[in-house]
Amino acid sequence: MDRIVIAVDAMGGDHAPEEIIKGALAAVQEVEIKVLLVGKEEVISPFLRGTSSLPVEVVNALQVVKMSDPPTDAIRAKKDSSIKVAVELVKQGRAQGVFSAGNSGATLAAAMFTLGRLKGVDRPALAGIIPTVKGHAVIIDVGGMVDCRPLHLVQFAVMGHVFAKYILNIPHPKVGLLNIGEEPAKGNETVKKAYSFLQKSPLNFVGNVEGKDVLYHKADVIVCDGFVGNVALKLGEGVVEGLVTLIKQEIKNSILGKLGLFLGKNVLKNVFQRLDYSEYGGAPLLGVNGTVIVGHGRSQAKAVKNGIKMAARFVKQEVNVHLAKGLKEHEDLIGGGWRKLTEKLKEVVS
Amino acid sequence: MDRIVIAVDAMGGDHAPEEIIKGALAAVQEVEIKVLLVGKEEVISPFLRGTSSLPVEVVNALQVVKMSDPPTDAIRAKKDSSIKVAVELVKQGRAQGVFSAGNSGATLAAAMFTLGRLKGVDRPALAGIIPTVKGHAVIIDVGGMVDCRPLHLVQFAVMGHVFAKYILNIPHPKVGLLNIGEEPAKGNETVKKAYSFLQKSPLNFVGNVEGKDVLYHKADVIVCDGFVGNVALKLGEGVVEGLVTLIKQEIKNSILGKLGLFLGKNVLKNVFQRLDYSEYGGAPLLGVNGTVIVGHGRSQAKAVKNGIKMAARFVKQEVNVHLAKGLKEHEDLIGGGWRKLTEKLKEVVS
Repeated sequence: MDRIVIAVDAMGGDHAPEEIIKGALAAVQEVEIKVLLVGKEEVISPFLRGTSSLPVEVVNALQVVKMSDPPTDAIRAKKDSSIKVAVELVKQGRAQGVFSAGNSGATLAAAMFTLGRLKGVDRPALAGIIPTVKGHAVIIDVGGMVDCRPLHLVQFAVMGHVFAKYILNIPHPKVGLLNIGEEPAKGNETVKKAYSFLQKSPLNFVGNVEGKDVLYHKADVIVCDGFVGNVALKLGEGVVEGLVTLIKQEIKNSILGKLGLFLGKNVLKNVFQRLDYSEYGGAPLLGVNGTVIVGHGRSQAKAVKNGIKMAARFVKQEVNVHLAKGLKEHEDLIGGGWRKLTEKLKEVVS
Repeated sequence: MDRIVIAVDAMGGDHAPEEIIKGALAAVQEVEIKVLLVGKEEVISPFLRGTSSLPVEVVNALQVVKMSDPPTDAIRAKKDSSIKVAVELVKQGRAQGVFSAGNSGATLAAAMFTLGRLKGVDRPALAGIIPTVKGHAVIIDVGGMVDCRPLHLVQFAVMGHVFAKYILNIPHPKVGLLNIGEEPAKGNETVKKAYSFLQKSPLNFVGNVEGKDVLYHKADVIVCDGFVGNVALKLGEGVVEGLVTLIKQEIKNSILGKLGLFLGKNVLKNVFQRLDYSEYGGAPLLGVNGTVIVGHGRSQAKAVKNGIKMAARFVKQEVNVHLAKGLKEHEDLIGGGWRKLTEKLKEVVS
């Protein structure tokens, strides 16, 4: 089998291009893949001196989508941007997957316009992989899609199920709905309707999951709209970071504390390592016709490396084949498919 | 001046009635107030043996609203429930404030139906007081109101502003909108419209606040709908608790870690104390015509005590007078008042 090729947006992210390139160079030394670094050749090349033996190539792209650019406009206007070109490499078959730590909205837009969606998916979704006290769980969506309808949440649930089953190797993933209480009657209108559909679906639906239960792994897959999911994911990160800041503030006032935390630092290091996003590298965009991993804007070399490796694993394990199959399977089980479900939903809403 | 009287729902909460009564007895010994314990007299009385010198009285109420009861139905059906009777004591002038750690939806419903709303408020909101690296911030709403329109978010902003100004003593509170990005164009339709109104308002509006910035105190007042706010608040709590669990898991594997954390335990204790909800006792319900503090369902004596003391402080500092004044002030400043703003909003929406 040929080497898997991953296109990497070398210009995207707060620490681009240096940390992105470093991460790519580390990735190709750990797994048998090839990386195409997409971006301004004159900027990238100096970082590649002395690495000519490694399977890394530069693909020139003269434009850059900034973090602050409006995603859809940027993708339309900047046809020669690194992210657009990287996604096109997949479309053309020159690469099998993409990693970008740049403007995530632009990555989503480029992926949707260029690669299209899988059958049965109205809106692709970002699946955040989060650490829990028992391992990892998936939150879907974490930033792609705001203003979701119940149908979208049901699709997210199916995609999360397939992802957890085939990639995280959980045979019967527990699927939960992020909500403000455990009872079925809780929540806003969208969530209540999604609940009633999920209850009838063949998924292993465990009901509502409250914010406090997320880390306790009440479900393997936690379904929510992109607004709530994004706020929740970033809040969780912020709380972990805030705790480190608070611990540092308190240590200043305590000699015993300094000694104690010196001795106990490996314990805390292990804990925070388990909570560190860079261990996972990025959030897969599920539902597009291709492999796309969206990295954290703040990604440094380690996160980039892990994100690229995740993209390669996705390709190798044929996630999209499983996703398409899972969506189809679920369509049959629901009886009549998505179209019928959409119509049913329209009846309920009207 | 007469002693401030606080009605306490003795039957509400996971640890009712014992912890509620203990908290009430502690409160009357710390501040000069009187407490009316509302609930089943035969259940409450045994806990009051030997406390006849304390300013605590029992008000008999034979029904109990359960945590799982549908709020509005329960309040309509159970006219002699402890929470309904407690709120009525305020309406009758026999008490000036209420504390309940019971079914929060039922507390909200009882307060709205019995006490009514302040002028200029369409929906009362729960203001969660959260610890940050710099002190405290207010998140409003944290569980009262889902399916909010932009107008409601603007009202929450005004109430949060008044609360932060007059109770937390912040002269010019920074008001932020919880969102998935910093740029004005980010977020769902409701949030985007709320942004444009807040930008024109005389509040000290600092723009969008992301989940990761909440603990870093980017704003004193963080505005969001009750769905997002509730998920975020509970997730934050869960992450802090989850961290404790993870630290315990890691300590098991490390002798040095055990010793270290023994020496450093005061540091961690201080940190987690700063993050402990029971230090604040509860979330004030802002916008109803009376003082109502909603305690955490899991409240133990200490949280109950602090919640009751908060209710007394609210009455003493005449928060609702300031709220009414603040809402009025803001109404004038907007020019034409809420009615006009509502109409404007309808134009935008349609």
